[in-house]
Amino acid sequence: MSVASTDIQTLAVDTIRTLSMDAVQTANSGHPGTPMALAPIAYQLYQHTMDYDPAQPAWPNRDRFVLSCGHASMLLYSSLHLIGVKALDENGQPTDRLAVTLDDIKSFRQIGSVCAGHPEFGEAAGIETTTGPLGAGVSNSVGMAMAAKWLAATYNTDSATLFDYNTYALCSDGDLMEGVACEAASVAGHLKLDNLCWIYDDNGITIEGETDLAFSENVGQRFEGLGWNVVHVDDANDLAALGKAIDNFKACNDKPTIIIVKSIIGYGAPNKQNTHGAHGAPLGWDEVALAKQSYGFPPEEKFYIPDGVQQHFAEGVGERGKKAFDAWNEIWAKYQKDHPEKAAELTAMFAGKLPEGWDKDIPVFPADEKGDATRNSSGKVLNAVAANIPFMIGGSADLAPSNKSDLKFDGAGNFQSGSYGGRNLHFGIREHAMAGITNGLSLSGLRSYAATFFVFSDYMRGGMRLSSIMHQPVIYILTHDSIGVGEDGPTHQPVEHLSACRAIPGLLVFRPGDSNEVAECYRTALSIDDHPSAFVLSRQNMPTLDRDVYADVSGCAKGGYVLSDCDGTPDVILMGSGSELNLCVDAAKTLTEQGKKVRIVSMPCMDLFQEQDQSYIDEVLPPAVTNRVAVEAGIRMSWDRWIGSAGKFVGMESYGASGPYAAVYEHFGINAEAVVNAASA
Amino acid sequence: MSVASTDIQTLAVDTIRTLSMDAVQTANSGHPGTPMALAPIAYQLYQHTMDYDPAQPAWPNRDRFVLSCGHASMLLYSSLHLIGVKALDENGQPTDRLAVTLDDIKSFRQIGSVCAGHPEFGEAAGIETTTGPLGAGVSNSVGMAMAAKWLAATYNTDSATLFDYNTYALCSDGDLMEGVACEAASVAGHLKLDNLCWIYDDNGITIEGETDLAFSENVGQRFEGLGWNVVHVDDANDLAALGKAIDNFKACNDKPTIIIVKSIIGYGAPNKQNTHGAHGAPLGWDEVALAKQSYGFPPEEKFYIPDGVQQHFAEGVGERGKKAFDAWNEIWAKYQKDHPEKAAELTAMFAGKLPEGWDKDIPVFPADEKGDATRNSSGKVLNAVAANIPFMIGGSADLAPSNKSDLKFDGAGNFQSGSYGGRNLHFGIREHAMAGITNGLSLSGLRSYAATFFVFSDYMRGGMRLSSIMHQPVIYILTHDSIGVGEDGPTHQPVEHLSACRAIPGLLVFRPGDSNEVAECYRTALSIDDHPSAFVLSRQNMPTLDRDVYADVSGCAKGGYVLSDCDGTPDVILMGSGSELNLCVDAAKTLTEQGKKVRIVSMPCMDLFQEQDQSYIDEVLPPAVTNRVAVEAGIRMSWDRWIGSAGKFVGMESYGASGPYAAVYEHFGINAEAVVNAASA
Repeated sequence: MSVASTDIQTLAVDTIRTLSMDAVQTANSGHPGTPMALAPIAYQLYQHTMDYDPAQPAWPNRDRFVLSCGHASMLLYSSLHLIGVKALDENGQPTDRLAVTLDDIKSFRQIGSVCAGHPEFGEAAGIETTTGPLGAGVSNSVGMAMAAKWLAATYNTDSATLFDYNTYALCSDGDLMEGVACEAASVAGHLKLDNLCWIYDDNGITIEGETDLAFSENVGQRFEGLGWNVVHVDDANDLAALGKAIDNFKACNDKPTIIIVKSIIGYGAPNKQNTHGAHGAPLGWDEVALAKQSYGFPPEEKFYIPDGVQQHFAEGVGERGKKAFDAWNEIWAKYQKDHPEKAAELTAMFAGKLPEGWDKDIPVFPADEKGDATRNSSGKVLNAVAANIPFMIGGSADLAPSNKSDLKFDGAGNFQSGSYGGRNLHFGIREHAMAGITNGLSLSGLRSYAATFFVFSDYMRGGMRLSSIMHQPVIYILTHDSIGVGEDGPTHQPVEHLSACRAIPGLLVFRPGDSNEVAECYRTALSIDDHPSAFVLSRQNMPTLDRDVYADVSGCAKGGYVLSDCDGTPDVILMGSGSELNLCVDAAKTLTEQGKKVRIVSMPCMDLFQEQDQSYIDEVLPPAVTNRVAVEAGIRMSWDRWIGSAGKFVGMESYGASGPYAAVYEHFGINAEAVVNAASA
Repeated sequence: MSVASTDIQTLAVDTIRTLSMDAVQTANSGHPGTPMALAPIAYQLYQHTMDYDPAQPAWPNRDRFVLSCGHASMLLYSSLHLIGVKALDENGQPTDRLAVTLDDIKSFRQIGSVCAGHPEFGEAAGIETTTGPLGAGVSNSVGMAMAAKWLAATYNTDSATLFDYNTYALCSDGDLMEGVACEAASVAGHLKLDNLCWIYDDNGITIEGETDLAFSENVGQRFEGLGWNVVHVDDANDLAALGKAIDNFKACNDKPTIIIVKSIIGYGAPNKQNTHGAHGAPLGWDEVALAKQSYGFPPEEKFYIPDGVQQHFAEGVGERGKKAFDAWNEIWAKYQKDHPEKAAELTAMFAGKLPEGWDKDIPVFPADEKGDATRNSSGKVLNAVAANIPFMIGGSADLAPSNKSDLKFDGAGNFQSGSYGGRNLHFGIREHAMAGITNGLSLSGLRSYAATFFVFSDYMRGGMRLSSIMHQPVIYILTHDSIGVGEDGPTHQPVEHLSACRAIPGLLVFRPGDSNEVAECYRTALSIDDHPSAFVLSRQNMPTLDRDVYADVSGCAKGGYVLSDCDGTPDVILMGSGSELNLCVDAAKTLTEQGKKVRIVSMPCMDLFQEQDQSYIDEVLPPAVTNRVAVEAGIRMSWDRWIGSAGKFVGMESYGASGPYAAVYEHFGINAEAVVNAASA
């Protein structure tokens, strides 16, 4: 069989198509239509646009490609295979193996294949981020573009351009309908991220039918309003027009660019193209054969790669990428000599490590009955560590003064279009995009954090979940953590959010019980480089415990620890976290006076506690002691495991109420007396 | 003291300001600046624009006012007080009492006051929706405007215009930065909702400083792109200009309108106006006095209402409202005679009741080993009830074919700009706005539902929480409920979402275990008119149990029930929900063969089960039987309460994997064998 009559460009594009169709059809599951439509775009980006060395997929200055329409995953896998992206070893070094083999593609959507239903970061080199939940990828891309600007501003010198990469994101109607995308686009426009290019697949088709069922806005005009450069391409198959549009992006130096490309979903499938029948279900082998025929491919051949296609990519992206990488490597070698300190920072960053001595200035807080709000201690600790982690960067969704999340030390500065080296980010009131951007920053090597009120974690759970799925050590700073919010009332008082966040697998939820626990929890969280953390912090003051009397805070590293104990077997174990820990302390005093033997367990992080050896867990919570009382100004759900069948809980069963916080606590009966009563019941 | 020199309009506006300032200052908590800035807008709307009868706050054809910037709650409370909105009794009938008394205002932000920190629906008549979480109110307003269109298309006749009300929403920078607002605006533009008017308070100030820290887009151009009519007003104090802008809205008959109004936050406070110091903290009594002085008010007088102000409102909105209500009432009286059936529907709807016989066509599903996916049975039951509830309306976020949420009976139709009487809504890929809109529909009297994949409940938790806070009986149809999603992989497989949704107070989470449980759960959920429900449904088939062998499904109404039992005290209780219930059934057979005494408990709704009398709970789960095994393809958290300290759990501890669903279940060891082993361990 021969496909010799087709020119090599078309052949390469059609091979992306046919590999994708065959994989979907073999899996009998997946989305064939979008890879078929967008193959020319992937081709144009990798082959002719991006500085991307397939042999060096971890090269820090590579251009990034984000497939925000993650359901089109085969587009990415086919491309990565054909351009020959190499796998990374466990130290992040490139190997001789392919990141995505033909066998991986043949086992698309099967357990164990790196070719999962949607692209999963970490499964194969070349997958820059996990996508699929619509809007997530484009929001990540804004973070990546911001990272590029920050790295350039911070590390480039007059003679050494270490960072000047671009980020391309391919997105669908669905991405652009999601609110998170509009939030992210508004941030990108505000920040004038001219290194960011979104390519919008305007195919007019959606799951329920044609997009005009629900989507009739003027996307270009909306993006112009958002401060973007808007470019149109009438036909996704017109490589020259795509190339020109990308040139337009590259020439624009004060705005992000969106290229709106008309495409035909399922292009080439004679009976299904341009219908939603080509979107989310396999075409059927018959239609696959007809499509192949329309491309001039042998209709019965599966996973067929025509001669010359891989060589074509090797001569294109392969050679261009190698040249770019080699040139960069020379600059980097010289930079390491000329700027050893900055180079050391970058080396640590690239390796996912923190600089030596990053925790040396974490404060110790003196015992203090009046104490402080943990949001305040968090602000102090955050500043103490960020000053020693030059690549720690973050901000708030317009609540920095309340979240105490601003970096205030000399030189921290604001990240704005005129000052990309600033480390304080202003996300505006856009929590979901904040999480997506923060993930993008983290994927770019920065230690990133995001702050808002705890109740608004509901707005960004999608992003928090993706931090965890991708094992990114993002820190979420979530203040105003309970009915302690007070006057703002039920809409602003998180009551279910502690359990709801603890439910997210892999997310470490810290709710420190005094200022020194804040410090120790930061030390613990920052030492963990493969999980996100959420710091759940109070608006109101709580006492700073006297650690000469109570146990050392080092127990925080195990998630839960015995804060104070009695002689012999306790009559009751009191457990608490955050602002309710001191209710345990007060109740314990009363109970002890009453002759009870009391143990107090502080539980700043259940997620870590449950990962400890059973022997440690049993040591802290001896199974024989079934009289256990937990107190937390939230719902009971996540405590059931620790208090057991006979346990009691002092907390919330409903939404909160508007009033001064102390009155709200009394209104709901969350106080030391209730703990004493529960312990004695 | 006299303020006679000021004209009555200015006096009325300034009284809204001073009441608001005094309330915030007395509470020493709240947001004074926005009520001071926007008092003229509230004045213009109530006094000169809206058909709103203060004596009839539940009048179905009243114009709606939504304070989306809920932190400016005092603006609403001051207005409701001054215009004299009457309280409703428990049957929703107006009384002679004021909905918001001066004493309520004096106890702003105190426990027990109807004047909570943010407006809480149900606390006082005139509060049309609970606002505060930014973006929520504007998304509700789209639902209200859609409801008006639907009611008009469905019930108006050539001779009787029962419904032609407008919805006005006042919103802030924060509202418009939130993605949900953009989603909702895109829907409104698409649907050409010319009865919807947003008024955007463009004050240039945000919590972190000036809005241009993070918000520099061209809002007008963005909204033009979204298909809106955009109108500008340069000065919020210019009542004539506001009036003209509202005239422009009323004249526009093919688009929603946004009026962009430049305002000065904290207007009149000489030292704090136009700064973020006027946003979220009291001004201090000194500054309050200076502001009063600038209005020509007695500076030391608190909660001062100048003579004539209340009368002015009575002569304006009061008289106009009464006239409008009386005219409508005549039409309604005639309508009841001319169209008794339609009138009966409306009467039921206004009373929050379902029509007689609404559940008569709920199917009974025959026993079937092959069974069906609960999403399919849900589709059948939904259609069976919706056909008998004419004012049931809803749709999906572009997943109707997968969610099985389309109404397919004759006349159901699509809700579009050319066909506002349709009952199938197309939300597009905009989950958060879908929830907000669905709340708005429900607040307008319709029985509304919203469908998407369960994993994307993360995108709309904010809206789901507000359904519950507002006691709206919205139904969320959430399909693809576990690792049973299969090939789409971890991003699309909810594992923590069951616990996370069960955590939301007041939300009833139903996860039926076969088709007949689906039917019974719908019957239960629809009978409850003051809580939202979430239906968590499978993509994959499960057997339809033979109810001659197993217990009747009526137990679903109690949330959990004994599905099958043994003689005497069980050796083990197996518990499950949804697609794992049949694993309990299979495991019970094996265990029974092994001579074990086994009880199976089906738990379709934990939220209802835990509300039962302790005696019923103990009857189903006898405390003495501690060998309990729960199985659910999600995390364990919400089960701990029911399995107890000695209990075992077969389920998930991590994110899922991409593969055919049966392989994924095996991969994670969730099968009958694991249940048998756990029961025997």
